[in-house]
Amino acid sequence: MKSEIISVGSEILIGDIIDTNSEYISKRLAELGINCYFHTSVGDNEIRLSKTIETALERSDVVFLSGGLGPTYDDKTKEITARVLGLELVYDEDTFKRIEAIFSKSNRKLTDNNKKQAYVPKGSKILTNYNGTAPGILIEHDEKVVVLLPGPPHEMKEMFEHWVIPYFSEKTGKTIVSHRIYLFDIGESYVEEILNEEMVHYENPTIAPYSGSDGIYLRITASADSKDKAEKLIEPVLQHVLNTFKEYVYSIDIPSLEETLVHKLKEKKLKLASAESCTGGYLGKRLTDIPGSSEVFELGLVTYSNRIKHLTLGVQEETLENHGAVSKETVVEMSNNLLELSSADVAVAISGIAGPGGGTKEKPVGTVYISVQTHQKMITRKLMLSRNYQSDRKRIRSLSVSHAFKMILDLIDSI
Amino acid sequence: MKSEIISVGSEILIGDIIDTNSEYISKRLAELGINCYFHTSVGDNEIRLSKTIETALERSDVVFLSGGLGPTYDDKTKEITARVLGLELVYDEDTFKRIEAIFSKSNRKLTDNNKKQAYVPKGSKILTNYNGTAPGILIEHDEKVVVLLPGPPHEMKEMFEHWVIPYFSEKTGKTIVSHRIYLFDIGESYVEEILNEEMVHYENPTIAPYSGSDGIYLRITASADSKDKAEKLIEPVLQHVLNTFKEYVYSIDIPSLEETLVHKLKEKKLKLASAESCTGGYLGKRLTDIPGSSEVFELGLVTYSNRIKHLTLGVQEETLENHGAVSKETVVEMSNNLLELSSADVAVAISGIAGPGGGTKEKPVGTVYISVQTHQKMITRKLMLSRNYQSDRKRIRSLSVSHAFKMILDLIDSI
Repeated sequence: MKSEIISVGSEILIGDIIDTNSEYISKRLAELGINCYFHTSVGDNEIRLSKTIETALERSDVVFLSGGLGPTYDDKTKEITARVLGLELVYDEDTFKRIEAIFSKSNRKLTDNNKKQAYVPKGSKILTNYNGTAPGILIEHDEKVVVLLPGPPHEMKEMFEHWVIPYFSEKTGKTIVSHRIYLFDIGESYVEEILNEEMVHYENPTIAPYSGSDGIYLRITASADSKDKAEKLIEPVLQHVLNTFKEYVYSIDIPSLEETLVHKLKEKKLKLASAESCTGGYLGKRLTDIPGSSEVFELGLVTYSNRIKHLTLGVQEETLENHGAVSKETVVEMSNNLLELSSADVAVAISGIAGPGGGTKEKPVGTVYISVQTHQKMITRKLMLSRNYQSDRKRIRSLSVSHAFKMILDLIDSI
Repeated sequence: MKSEIISVGSEILIGDIIDTNSEYISKRLAELGINCYFHTSVGDNEIRLSKTIETALERSDVVFLSGGLGPTYDDKTKEITARVLGLELVYDEDTFKRIEAIFSKSNRKLTDNNKKQAYVPKGSKILTNYNGTAPGILIEHDEKVVVLLPGPPHEMKEMFEHWVIPYFSEKTGKTIVSHRIYLFDIGESYVEEILNEEMVHYENPTIAPYSGSDGIYLRITASADSKDKAEKLIEPVLQHVLNTFKEYVYSIDIPSLEETLVHKLKEKKLKLASAESCTGGYLGKRLTDIPGSSEVFELGLVTYSNRIKHLTLGVQEETLENHGAVSKETVVEMSNNLLELSSADVAVAISGIAGPGGGTKEKPVGTVYISVQTHQKMITRKLMLSRNYQSDRKRIRSLSVSHAFKMILDLIDSI
């Protein structure tokens, strides 16, 4: 089965946004065993878009289009696709009601433009959008399949997982099962070196490394007639990987350190408190990204200045003077006093130099101290996170939080 | 002048790498005033790549190709382009010497493959690569221009800046200037409705709306013989837009609320303190994303539970009981007490229901209260931010922080 992807939007062609949708769809197609031979980005222009769709239909069996399903006059993907295929657009009451409900909920006024989104090509299958107004559309036509997806990545991805993957899994007659093993603080090339043999020679399941939001993950994918058979194929490979990378693994199938941590804190009925300096609330933000984190997150303090570290957290002035705010002594006092102050079970403190300014010869940009403790145990670490990249501030802050999460996970696993 | 970009590489089509080269080249072309109508990604396949180049030459004046200039057997961009154009490849001694020098410098052995990189289409202009071995190539042929660039972004970008921009600036004889006006809390379709006339009819400068990380922005772009002349063309349109959307504008050319806020706080020598409930540290995180924010960010508190709101911030137990943690009364006490506690000049407090759980009939998910105050003035707002999306939690938290930033900007602008 040959496929291709068309991204619609003038913003892509002037470089204002980057086309991540094609990357995502390509990855999923590779898993489904569907070849993808072209990506095309084209603007919201009638002639050029029509021609692009016609060319795609000549050379591919399946054509994905993303973008251009919005309510405004320059969103024409649906209209042009219908015209190219010779299909009329018909009003879909259910879709209109769903859009209406979204608007009434947020007290916004529905315009005629929004009604346009409730029209769909006759005979098409509607892919309900759970994250936005524009419905997705799947059209089977003359042995070809055309799939229209919304442009915003979070809408497109959810729709793809929910509707498109099951549709093509059924079409190809195979059940695809994947498990992901998440690793932190280990490089992709190192993993590739160790697993090279397996990655090159395994055919079913396959195993491949990807970079995730926290570190990397190894995806093990098997294809079989049934889910059970696929799971059985995966099992020994999964065990092999777990044994090989034991100390780096933080989860199976839970895609972030924070989500893994919230699960574990809940499971162990523990509460966490945090005191952040260079990360400025980032740890709290990431933790509370996870629904239900309020049950486990007791208190967060962002103590940027020395005055506030002393005043709010009771860090001794002598400690700050003798060792500096970025030191093992300071973070230990921070986590220690926080544990008392907050009545949490686990306290974490981070202090470091995120840059670009503030570095010295002894403590260059990227120096970060983290302390994690319970009433029984404590771990502290000094990290050197700079790589002299322009984007270092972002990297250093993000990695500091990730390291803190991994340290908390390690500590509570050991008690 | 019509242009298009072709990215060559099978890695792109299986989603292993993301095509950032097209985004970069598109941005630069927009600045040069060269229209770009298509991006295509295609694999290292002879038939498909030949066809793609032929199609591009039929419809565009300038064709950029990136990738496939490496030394290995599946790098065929140069060979295929030469064949499509009917040009033979000739050996270039200077290029070979440059490649040889790179190898001897790093003590690597030159192979026959590397010699392949020293062949170029006859009559082409060589674009020296200062970051790698593959030379770039510029071919003027039958009124068309074809530019071959290496795939690795750092090689491609440097080459583009050094060789390609000067070439096309001279060709077009134009200077392009853009300014962006950033707006918050206003919909793109509403902006389009009001500015429809201008957007459709203006030719120089042009004006167009885009979605940004916080709300939307309007880009005004003018082309003239000199920078000054272009600026003069933009000035009246910029003023017109500023007057039309006054209360929604938060910056010109500063692309985020937090960066604008840090600038303004520094300028006015004010310090900020925050108390966050439902946003869990997100406000602090976004503020401290900006280098130098430590000068203006005094203290951040993440007070998720009622107990901690009472204990750390001194919110009265009666207030919490009678009005609830998500109420105007609570956020006002939070910001008020925080102002005293922290000795900051401006205090902000956020409390709301981010969901998915925790909503009630009176206070559904998405209800958020924000209070901002200085010693002289206070603003409070109640927001209803839910849209019933699956991704609502993320949206609600992000919008809450953005609204808080905009309220702080408005308040300090008024004092």
